[in-house]
Amino acid sequence: MARTKAYVASVGFTKVAEHWESSILDLAVEAALKALKGVPKLSPQQLFVGNMFSSAGASQEHMGALVASALGLEGIPAFKVESACSSGASAFNVAYSLVKSGAIDSALVVGVEKMRDLEPEAVSQALAMAESAEYTQFVGATFAALNGLLARHYMERMDVTRDELSALPVIDHANAVAAEHAQFRRAITPEIVARSGMVADPLRLFDCAPVGDGAAAVVLVNDSGASHARKAKMAEVAGGRVSTARFSVYEREDMLDFTATKAAFREAMKQAGLSPQKVDFVEVHDAFSVVGALSLEAMGFSKKGMGSKDAKAGKYGPKSDLPVNTFGGLKARGHPVGATGVYQIAEAYLQLTGQAGGNQVEGAEYGVTQNVGGVDTTAAVHVFRGAE
Amino acid sequence: MARTKAYVASVGFTKVAEHWESSILDLAVEAALKALKGVPKLSPQQLFVGNMFSSAGASQEHMGALVASALGLEGIPAFKVESACSSGASAFNVAYSLVKSGAIDSALVVGVEKMRDLEPEAVSQALAMAESAEYTQFVGATFAALNGLLARHYMERMDVTRDELSALPVIDHANAVAAEHAQFRRAITPEIVARSGMVADPLRLFDCAPVGDGAAAVVLVNDSGASHARKAKMAEVAGGRVSTARFSVYEREDMLDFTATKAAFREAMKQAGLSPQKVDFVEVHDAFSVVGALSLEAMGFSKKGMGSKDAKAGKYGPKSDLPVNTFGGLKARGHPVGATGVYQIAEAYLQLTGQAGGNQVEGAEYGVTQNVGGVDTTAAVHVFRGAE
Repeated sequence: MARTKAYVASVGFTKVAEHWESSILDLAVEAALKALKGVPKLSPQQLFVGNMFSSAGASQEHMGALVASALGLEGIPAFKVESACSSGASAFNVAYSLVKSGAIDSALVVGVEKMRDLEPEAVSQALAMAESAEYTQFVGATFAALNGLLARHYMERMDVTRDELSALPVIDHANAVAAEHAQFRRAITPEIVARSGMVADPLRLFDCAPVGDGAAAVVLVNDSGASHARKAKMAEVAGGRVSTARFSVYEREDMLDFTATKAAFREAMKQAGLSPQKVDFVEVHDAFSVVGALSLEAMGFSKKGMGSKDAKAGKYGPKSDLPVNTFGGLKARGHPVGATGVYQIAEAYLQLTGQAGGNQVEGAEYGVTQNVGGVDTTAAVHVFRGAE
Repeated sequence: MARTKAYVASVGFTKVAEHWESSILDLAVEAALKALKGVPKLSPQQLFVGNMFSSAGASQEHMGALVASALGLEGIPAFKVESACSSGASAFNVAYSLVKSGAIDSALVVGVEKMRDLEPEAVSQALAMAESAEYTQFVGATFAALNGLLARHYMERMDVTRDELSALPVIDHANAVAAEHAQFRRAITPEIVARSGMVADPLRLFDCAPVGDGAAAVVLVNDSGASHARKAKMAEVAGGRVSTARFSVYEREDMLDFTATKAAFREAMKQAGLSPQKVDFVEVHDAFSVVGALSLEAMGFSKKGMGSKDAKAGKYGPKSDLPVNTFGGLKARGHPVGATGVYQIAEAYLQLTGQAGGNQVEGAEYGVTQNVGGVDTTAAVHVFRGAE
């Protein structure tokens, strides 16, 4: 289907924070206007809003038309796309497929989530909607509980220590110190992770992405749309794929095998014609430390069982050959659910256009983003290339 | 973008009813399996689920991957697409654009909604999420109330009588008598409408679509995908467009002017290269009688102010030149919100492939479906052509 190339032409986002003063619409509009400011001559042909629980969180559906109208873009087709925590990258993927195929020449993708207006118990309930109501929610398993079981299995079977599991969160927090839009900008140590409160044994507070509000937006164009965006710096979308797995972990042959991420990564890299050795940085979906480790293994950057161990050994740190979560990842930049995938893509854009400031990966040419819904039930992987 | 043609190759649906014994997943799977049975050699490349409030209604998000996994289709990209009451046709439209452009060769589109598990007040709250939380919901306006204001304005300004407003619901119920999947299969009279309980003055119970559960599914293919579906009867998707308007009625210059439907219809007909005189039947979004009338006016089938009057005069009846809502429309077939647009498309397919049984429009060659979210905030119009 390679009829034209597709590019991210502009990005915008809010700080991930407790935005008590802003509605979900305010956040979406703020991010979108920032992104549109980068391409003043372009009016996007379609709008895709990535969001998981505007309903539970803000008593609001119909986000596509709502955001379009608020932006003065009424008239254009506007949709909400949802796939739990991967809603942001799923919305991007649908838009990317349409732009790349030439069905449309440009699109605005906005990921947004308002989590803090909910009581903590309600956030747990909302997140649990990523899992089956009939088979998982009704037995009382929270999403953190499922991931806790996964982490226990991972640690015991792969002989992973507490400090090894802590390595990715430590990297995330180190990277977030210079990231102005990150929710938590203080460095942490393995000792701090190990002493933090228990959430779902063995996962502690600092293994888990925080609750926060935020929105991120990107403008996608193809070769036709690019003429309206010529002055903007652009990053090519070299490949992208969404894959799904058997719905829940207990239905799978090996719960440590992230088949959705594996398949999505393989296909996205094939589209890009890229070997893994060429990747300069990876934005990985570490909603929980164990999920980040298993994701790096599924993409082949670490061997099976080695994700956390490699992180501990320095493979993924800021000055390593393969920096991971260069602005703090889900743990420290934050994880406003439906927005997260778009934040990752915006961050990859900043890296590949040399606009990453204190977080810049020097000489970065190729970057990968991986966004997950459920426990690797949906995985959306995209590969980006800097302008030559 | 006319690189290939797109076709509906198969459809399936449940009866619209109070499905106390079935979960939202059960309904979606039942409809999908029926549709897939029609194309046994085909495995759809992507899945799009149209749904508005699985969250509020069934504590369930991530419907794309959930349905894919339940169908044994895990692996394929799967998304939920939402645009309030037009979610079904919006999901179809995204899939259609991808199939038509050649980005993919086939797609399964499933529309589903489970409404009856909610208490009536909760249904009202869920439907109100189609309107702005900040500016409409918080002042206490229900969705029926907004449409009641619209109907009052329509009747007074256009001099529409109670019996004229009742004409479309009467047509709907007459058509549903022979429709096995319809929720209400008894004919009604204008007197019954006029005597029914007041919902939101001047709208009475029989002006309003009922609350019900249901799912409908269609398989979309392009010329490449069609080789796997050769034996199936197919209907061509000759054109399709989603448009949006200023978000709520009170923001518009003329609340009786359905600009989203107008623009979507114009563009879809342009894609189809069709003049309105060639249309043989129309499936119109009459969630409320007034909305059906204004929709027919926006598409130009009736002049401004004449939608209900024309219906009363016999223009849209079963044996007329332009039958409307041939299986009962939203009022009598039923309106399981996110499924409705897919029901309309499935019904158009039945008409154009000569499988409409007692509801068959003889010699039908072209049909139009119009699905609306909010008060014509989003409109999705598709044009279908029977095989030659």
